Amino acid sequence: MEAKAPSDSRTILTDLVLPSETNPLNNLFGGELLARMDRAASIAARRHSRRIVVTASVNHVAFNKAIPLGSVVTVEAAVSRAFKSSMEIFIDVWVEDRESGRRSKANEAIYTFVAVDETGTPIQIPALEPKTDLEKERYDAALRRKQLSLVLAGKMKPSEATELKALFE
Amino acid sequence: MEAKAPSDSRTILTDLVLPSETNPLNNLFGGELLARMDRAASIAARRHSRRIVVTASVNHVAFNKAIPLGSVVTVEAAVSRAFKSSMEIFIDVWVEDRESGRRSKANEAIYTFVAVDETGTPIQIPALEPKTDLEKERYDAALRRKQLSLVLAGKMKPSEATELKALFE
Amino acid sequence: MEAKAPSDSRTILTDLVLPSETNPLNNLFGGELLARMDRAASIAARRHSRRIVVTASVNHVAFNKAIPLGSVVTVEAAVSRAFKSSMEIFIDVWVEDRESGRRSKANEAIYTFVAVDETGTPIQIPALEPKTDLEKERYDAALRRKQLSLVLAGKMKPSEATELKALFE
Amino acid sequence: MEAKAPSDSRTILTDLVLPSETNPLNNLFGGELLARMDRAASIAARRHSRRIVVTASVNHVAFNKAIPLGSVVTVEAAVSRAFKSSMEIFIDVWVEDRESGRRSKANEAIYTFVAVDETGTPIQIPALEPKTDLEKERYDAALRRKQLSLVLAGKMKPSEATELKALFE
Amino acid sequence: MEAKAPSDSRTILTDLVLPSETNPLNNLFGGELLARMDRAASIAARRHSRRIVVTASVNHVAFNKAIPLGSVVTVEAAVSRAFKSSMEIFIDVWVEDRESGRRSKANEAIYTFVAVDETGTPIQIPALEPKTDLEKERYDAALRRKQLSLVLAGKMKPSEATELKALFE
Amino acid sequence: MEAKAPSDSRTILTDLVLPSETNPLNNLFGGELLARMDRAASIAARRHSRRIVVTASVNHVAFNKAIPLGSVVTVEAAVSRAFKSSMEIFIDVWVEDRESGRRSKANEAIYTFVAVDETGTPIQIPALEPKTDLEKERYDAALRRKQLSLVLAGKMKPSEATELKALFE
Repeated sequence: MEAKAPSDSRTILTDLVLPSETNPLNNLFGGELLARMDRAASIAARRHSRRIVVTASVNHVAFNKAIPLGSVVTVEAAVSRAFKSSMEIFIDVWVEDRESGRRSKANEAIYTFVAVDETGTPIQIPALEPKTDLEKERYDAALRRKQLSLVLAGKMKPSEATELKALFE
Repeated sequence: MEAKAPSDSRTILTDLVLPSETNPLNNLFGGELLARMDRAASIAARRHSRRIVVTASVNHVAFNKAIPLGSVVTVEAAVSRAFKSSMEIFIDVWVEDRESGRRSKANEAIYTFVAVDETGTPIQIPALEPKTDLEKERYDAALRRKQLSLVLAGKMKPSEATELKALFE
Repeated sequence: MEAKAPSDSRTILTDLVLPSETNPLNNLFGGELLARMDRAASIAARRHSRRIVVTASVNHVAFNKAIPLGSVVTVEAAVSRAFKSSMEIFIDVWVEDRESGRRSKANEAIYTFVAVDETGTPIQIPALEPKTDLEKERYDAALRRKQLSLVLAGKMKPSEATELKALFE
Repeated sequence: MEAKAPSDSRTILTDLVLPSETNPLNNLFGGELLARMDRAASIAARRHSRRIVVTASVNHVAFNKAIPLGSVVTVEAAVSRAFKSSMEIFIDVWVEDRESGRRSKANEAIYTFVAVDETGTPIQIPALEPKTDLEKERYDAALRRKQLSLVLAGKMKPSEATELKALFE
Repeated sequence: MEAKAPSDSRTILTDLVLPSETNPLNNLFGGELLARMDRAASIAARRHSRRIVVTASVNHVAFNKAIPLGSVVTVEAAVSRAFKSSMEIFIDVWVEDRESGRRSKANEAIYTFVAVDETGTPIQIPALEPKTDLEKERYDAALRRKQLSLVLAGKMKPSEATELKALFE
Repeated sequence: MEAKAPSDSRTILTDLVLPSETNPLNNLFGGELLARMDRAASIAARRHSRRIVVTASVNHVAFNKAIPLGSVVTVEAAVSRAFKSSMEIFIDVWVEDRESGRRSKANEAIYTFVAVDETGTPIQIPALEPKTDLEKERYDAALRRKQLSLVLAGKMKPSEATELKALFE
């Protein structure tokens, strides 16, 4: 299987914030944004693997910025690292001001997907080859995140998480 | 107001075909695709005009190709010509084969939007300057379509529709 | 197969405009109206053909009149002409004023559906026999529209579109 | 206020059964049918009263017949009796067989609505004048149902429910 | 089959009132509440019977109290009596004031479900054994309601409805 | 402000997996589960604070277990620790086997909400007092998670994250 670049899986989902998706402050519900990011990320995972893909985990997501009713929201997802059958997807969320047209970053999120066959069994996928500086930076960080997630799940001893441990030294 | 290019308003909405959006043959409902195209087109119209925009009309849309459940559908919309307060939006719809990853054209559609102020009154918008050959071709055709629409609405005499008349000579 | 009248397929879908279906001006989204018309038209096509039907095209639709939140909207669809396996459906949209109860015309639209068998292959359908003056007028215009659509799709030479050509002479 | 006939409020909502509205047996969810009937009945109540209307109660509803995915369902609602500010709405539900085109009765239901002003206070509405035999029959039965509902709510002594009492003698 | 207690089937569905579920007075639509109650009741019926269950009927439901946008609504459903293959489900609906946190009763409703096998044929279910005073009261009343429903459906002579008749003596 | 117990905010949302919420393997979409958890967690946060609450972040969520179409899913959320104006909400997700009635754990997730006033400004909330052993364990872990999140966001030096650092020694 030939390696792929992040641009091969880049997925853009631009859509409006509709009235049925807002909370009492008239901002987009956190839950609705999580669902949109999941759909975009699943398409990116599928573009990389050309397989059925299922959500394996959602990394830490911070909602730093309220997204008001009527906004144009762009969810941009791309594979940031591929492991054996799992992929880390990095998601950037942008909001656009109607009058100035200025785009500003609203959120970042990281989802992990697993590629499976028709019976739901994990299956091997192509490697990822980062190209730009930002892609390389995300690729490297993905390994630390994987270790952290294994540690938190009790599947790796903290002492073996070499990449992660370095952070605290 | 400075003229804008089609790329300034280009809007990409990539999303899945979900089970609740399919007909008895398990293909995407025509009506659901029309709604998605309307949302993408309205964002493109808003990016060009930076105003509230409302759907004015939908030109002829042909559904040549069924889009099955689970497909990845990309709706790509951009302003193809701007008039005083109305804009023609050209929409391309692509479907992606999961296994080969090949994209194929599923539909084309043309919507017209009007930019309005808070009271709903039409308001002037920037001109459009086409750049690529395809953009120029669509820009020229837009005038013929506008004439056709005025003729069909009884607001222009067929004899005055010079661009259109040429077609039948 | 016995011919049918438009009244055999007439379909009425009266429903409210709900908050989740409105744009920033608090009027019904164009895309939502397109979807409702598609559902009503597909039922009319099915009543005429008693087959599975799929949307083939949407003719020019003008949105002349905003439909505010909370309105009662009536979509009325009936087959206006039947060809070999395709049907033109004419749709009238009415809005009702709550206080006076007065109904006014909000839109007209024309959709084309094709009847298919379980494999998606087009299949022959009954002829349509118009009865009232309005039905006859729409029946005649349907042929011109079909020619126009063939010309625009490049499947008929403008010079052969006899019905249509007459318009420009 | 002039009395109105049931035909003045008759409301028809014909729509498809979509995949998202079905239970594990692939039939329309009871809850979804209840919601559609509520919308149609609220429009009928509004057409009679030309006021804001709110659901006051739902009478006994029996689901005698499963309605399969893909069916065409017609909900037909009309005011069957008007009291001071409340109205009884009688609802007939029909299902249509795609191949034969035969319509059969799937359900009957009775909802009560109250007309209110902008502050939610009940407000007087026109009387109802039944015309056909079926309309008269439903009009008479409405009084018995109102008594039954008052008795069940503990707001009327069974001994005073003259219309109802007769049933058990 | 061993008898079960109401607590074995008790089902709690706490959720928000979203903007897309409200009427012009900004209160929860009656139809939406009916649909939520149907979902909670169907789960209770399933927990009692461990079978596929379908809505058989909805008893009289009164909407005494408006439920405003943004409210927290708790629907609590439990089997109140089991017959051969049908179950009566008693549903209590509570609304919560955001500031004081006080819960108040908004509605009561009674639905009947039937347990069926994969072909839709009714199938026997466990008996219900009420434990608390309230559960016993609802259990006893369920028989009167069943008789009433049989009488209204013309399947039992009023003179044979002994439980019910007593009410009017 | 008086401290509250986790039981004061415990929120239960039991609901079905509907066909419109499933992926190509007929299991619940990750994104839909994320949205349900967000709604339940927001109610728990509101019950603790009696304020408007907004999603601040989602901690790591693992989807270990597929949840098939037609399942009964119970989302149970309660505040696990309160800080100045933010709350950590711990969410347990259970799935129920229809035939055996056995409940099994499908997921755990941790969301953070912030209480705000009508202008969106953070506002002080009551403390949380854990009662059971499990509640105490989650209360203690919440501090480590908060430090981890501050470190990852670059708002705390790893060397100052005393609770967290201990993990890697």
